[in-house]
Amino acid sequence: MCRWLAYSGSPVSIETLLFKPEHSLIDQSLHSKLGAETTNGDGFGIGWYGAAATPGVYRSTEPAWNDRNLRDLSAHIESPLVFAHIRAAIGSVVQATNCHPFRHERWLFMHNGFIGEFEKVKRDLVLAVDPSLYPSIEGSSDTEVLFHLALTFGLEDDPPAAVATAVGLVEQIGEKHGVEHPIQMTVATTNGESVWAFRYSSQRDSRSLFYSTDLPTLRALHPEVEILNLLSQESRLIVSEPVRDLAGAWNEVPESSYGVVQEGQDELRPFTPKAPAMAVPAGV
Amino acid sequence: MCRWLAYSGSPVSIETLLFKPEHSLIDQSLHSKLGAETTNGDGFGIGWYGAAATPGVYRSTEPAWNDRNLRDLSAHIESPLVFAHIRAAIGSVVQATNCHPFRHERWLFMHNGFIGEFEKVKRDLVLAVDPSLYPSIEGSSDTEVLFHLALTFGLEDDPPAAVATAVGLVEQIGEKHGVEHPIQMTVATTNGESVWAFRYSSQRDSRSLFYSTDLPTLRALHPEVEILNLLSQESRLIVSEPVRDLAGAWNEVPESSYGVVQEGQDELRPFTPKAPAMAVPAGV
Amino acid sequence: MCRWLAYSGSPVSIETLLFKPEHSLIDQSLHSKLGAETTNGDGFGIGWYGAAATPGVYRSTEPAWNDRNLRDLSAHIESPLVFAHIRAAIGSVVQATNCHPFRHERWLFMHNGFIGEFEKVKRDLVLAVDPSLYPSIEGSSDTEVLFHLALTFGLEDDPPAAVATAVGLVEQIGEKHGVEHPIQMTVATTNGESVWAFRYSSQRDSRSLFYSTDLPTLRALHPEVEILNLLSQESRLIVSEPVRDLAGAWNEVPESSYGVVQEGQDELRPFTPKAPAMAVPAGV
Amino acid sequence: MCRWLAYSGSPVSIETLLFKPEHSLIDQSLHSKLGAETTNGDGFGIGWYGAAATPGVYRSTEPAWNDRNLRDLSAHIESPLVFAHIRAAIGSVVQATNCHPFRHERWLFMHNGFIGEFEKVKRDLVLAVDPSLYPSIEGSSDTEVLFHLALTFGLEDDPPAAVATAVGLVEQIGEKHGVEHPIQMTVATTNGESVWAFRYSSQRDSRSLFYSTDLPTLRALHPEVEILNLLSQESRLIVSEPVRDLAGAWNEVPESSYGVVQEGQDELRPFTPKAPAMAVPAGV
Repeated sequence: MCRWLAYSGSPVSIETLLFKPEHSLIDQSLHSKLGAETTNGDGFGIGWYGAAATPGVYRSTEPAWNDRNLRDLSAHIESPLVFAHIRAAIGSVVQATNCHPFRHERWLFMHNGFIGEFEKVKRDLVLAVDPSLYPSIEGSSDTEVLFHLALTFGLEDDPPAAVATAVGLVEQIGEKHGVEHPIQMTVATTNGESVWAFRYSSQRDSRSLFYSTDLPTLRALHPEVEILNLLSQESRLIVSEPVRDLAGAWNEVPESSYGVVQEGQDELRPFTPKAPAMAVPAGV
Repeated sequence: MCRWLAYSGSPVSIETLLFKPEHSLIDQSLHSKLGAETTNGDGFGIGWYGAAATPGVYRSTEPAWNDRNLRDLSAHIESPLVFAHIRAAIGSVVQATNCHPFRHERWLFMHNGFIGEFEKVKRDLVLAVDPSLYPSIEGSSDTEVLFHLALTFGLEDDPPAAVATAVGLVEQIGEKHGVEHPIQMTVATTNGESVWAFRYSSQRDSRSLFYSTDLPTLRALHPEVEILNLLSQESRLIVSEPVRDLAGAWNEVPESSYGVVQEGQDELRPFTPKAPAMAVPAGV
Repeated sequence: MCRWLAYSGSPVSIETLLFKPEHSLIDQSLHSKLGAETTNGDGFGIGWYGAAATPGVYRSTEPAWNDRNLRDLSAHIESPLVFAHIRAAIGSVVQATNCHPFRHERWLFMHNGFIGEFEKVKRDLVLAVDPSLYPSIEGSSDTEVLFHLALTFGLEDDPPAAVATAVGLVEQIGEKHGVEHPIQMTVATTNGESVWAFRYSSQRDSRSLFYSTDLPTLRALHPEVEILNLLSQESRLIVSEPVRDLAGAWNEVPESSYGVVQEGQDELRPFTPKAPAMAVPAGV
Repeated sequence: MCRWLAYSGSPVSIETLLFKPEHSLIDQSLHSKLGAETTNGDGFGIGWYGAAATPGVYRSTEPAWNDRNLRDLSAHIESPLVFAHIRAAIGSVVQATNCHPFRHERWLFMHNGFIGEFEKVKRDLVLAVDPSLYPSIEGSSDTEVLFHLALTFGLEDDPPAAVATAVGLVEQIGEKHGVEHPIQMTVATTNGESVWAFRYSSQRDSRSLFYSTDLPTLRALHPEVEILNLLSQESRLIVSEPVRDLAGAWNEVPESSYGVVQEGQDELRPFTPKAPAMAVPAGV
């Protein structure tokens, strides 16, 4: 599928996150260990928060390992909140509008996994997107539709509830069409302040997802790793697969759970899809 | 907007059509005289019929004047029926899935113009597309939707009626949403045997469209133009703007008309949109 | 040919420079008024100085007016020294390694114009490049060779002398090969602190080049233009053609001259090419 | 490094060669078994002979597995002589001018391997290229230089001797610069009639290379494989790694050898590099 990384914490150069670690995301674009595919070469994207009102997004259809602009931009852009995604396309065409992260105003959204038999359920799902949001769908990927469903169901107000409803709808419509496994996902979304990360699949056998151990513990475990001393106490990474082999550094997000990285105490909670109360649109 | 060319006749190399004439389509990509924009640099596409069951399509987001592959392929591919299109995007993103011609099985479709205030009407139009055709929409352009509407309304059986119904629906839904000029278009479509070319706009002030004079007359007028002797009697070009300044060679397709290039006598007839009899989908 | 812009002054977002003015560089990519070509759609590049040791460079083969990443990056990157270039290729292929600005360590270099009959003189010119610099030539453009010649002749120590020697060599070798007009150029180069801009052509009929009036005068002339109040007194633009029609704002760099934008008083001086003292390499 | 395929025989669609076999070249772009890298995603190219005076070439920087145009063109182009190459870049930038096959008039040339420490020897090698050929070098790859050396040393008259001299020079200049293993290569070249394929490396441990068993034997071994009955008796494939697991179908080209596929009897001969008699250019 894909690999992704979400970082929140002290401002760092994107290069530090993307290129410098041993088994970095860029390395994973050629040699993923835990992914469904070892190669994630069907485009990539980064999103970050800075001075402007909305987050910056840079997406390209080239393999991430190739892109010279990515290398340069990564060295020059610092940010306290970064999303990065490398894509292994399954079905939908390789074009920038299918690359993650997707953006809506202050929000970013990215995904590893798929909506099962998307061509069967796409129309019904798109019909459930709020008509005012519909025109901003530009590509043809399942994730962009999932994002717009989450926005439709209130992502900006209550992200866990909105994602639960969106996923519930995907399962409901999938079942209606006889799709065996309607959804497989790890998803991250952010408003520039908090980050929500979800791990779920209809078959309860979800793609891997890890979060980094809290900084004070990590520093105590690895006093020799310099970068740990440069980051603030609240800095946190969430990743599809570990980017550096550091004992005690990585904790698996449990099956059917979500985490919140936020000011104050981070949280880890169970995730249960919940089909929307609203009637499915007429004619579906 | 865009410029396009449709050729039907003796097999010729695509280079002969695209690069060799004085004011060729490639030249028009930089210096259009009659277009709404002088530059048509937002991607291009060619479609042609050959040995395979479906027509070949080559589409790219680069300006046509730049693309070296286009030059090589044009020199190497011969075909009796060629569509070529250069794009000046208005609004929708520059990606190959928004480039013309669009293909569905044996059919090709291309368009110069636009659906007015597309973001307002897009959802209703997409809802009217046959659900079995819906998943094959891959891009975000107005033309791809128009093509799928025409397919929905029977393009493969009766092209003029299907296009009239599609355009009628666009006008009906446009009016519902208060769009002043719902459509502006010159459109060409083909099944690999005949070519249909339409000129129409809601405001009755349509983009230019020309067809070439019949070969016997042209040869009599210009015995010095060698290529004319190499083409069969039935060879015909339809173009957004003349590709060669040759007295007596170009005839304007009248406002609100369509032409058919076919075996036997070609035809030119009036075109009148006709909203579909079927009820607009519930909830629209 | 091409159009370019060099900015030095208070840190501004690149968007302010590239997109916001009326007749912005992006607008010039489609509608240049003073350029040899109205369309400059054969790739573009930006270079800027920030936190990293070397300037950032972002180059793409797409037309600048198309590139969504450019728009996003421009909104997110602020810099006190920016180079931007849009290309109209003449001869050499459209690839990122032929896009300007070129970079060598702390230096950037960009060019509007050409080396006359480059295919005739290229080998001799490349032979004159310092062998240690030679492997860093990655593309096939005349400008990249000119830059490497300037580096060979001491650009990092004395830019005006180095450029004079490089241009002198181009004229010497051009004459040897019977090239009527060996060079046509406006060139900008910078080390991240000062900017040098040259206007010269062998035929003394050089492409246009303008520098902005000093800020205090501009503010007095146009108290209503807000942005002028936000920029430091030393802020300066150098451009191929004016980016905003503001009376009194633009001054032509005289024929065969160069200017220096630097700390303290800026300078404007005559430019005279001077062939290198060193013997031309054996066998040339 | 890379993977390549050369086909000579009955005209076939390129699709038959590239996409249809089990472990096709396209499959090898993601999952090479014998290559130095499993992923060959840094661009690709095809070359073929048809009606035009020079062979067609289509090259792209996208991974071959992604490129929709390649799929369409492959289905539509038939040719009796096809070269195809997928690239895993080592060092030189990913741009179409670095993609194989390279073309010079009627000739094509492609390569798997590398010139050792190319940045050290590049200048001396380029100096040895015939000055009249020099301007046609457009990219920055080692292979393009090797091809131009072979052309310089008479490729068009005596391919084995020209390649032997080019390789001899690469070894001579490599040794001068202290390069331990100056060259590693499998190379294919053709004039549109015969195909020459070389396997050699300075360390005598060359990349794999295979040629297909003659058709009559293959048919006798595998009467059930239909395509074998459609091909003429002289049809032959040469490949970096087998494209279909068929007992008795593939024969390794021996170390330090070359083969010729030609009208009449094909040949297999030893290959010995031979430094050029001509003095190395002054100053080298």
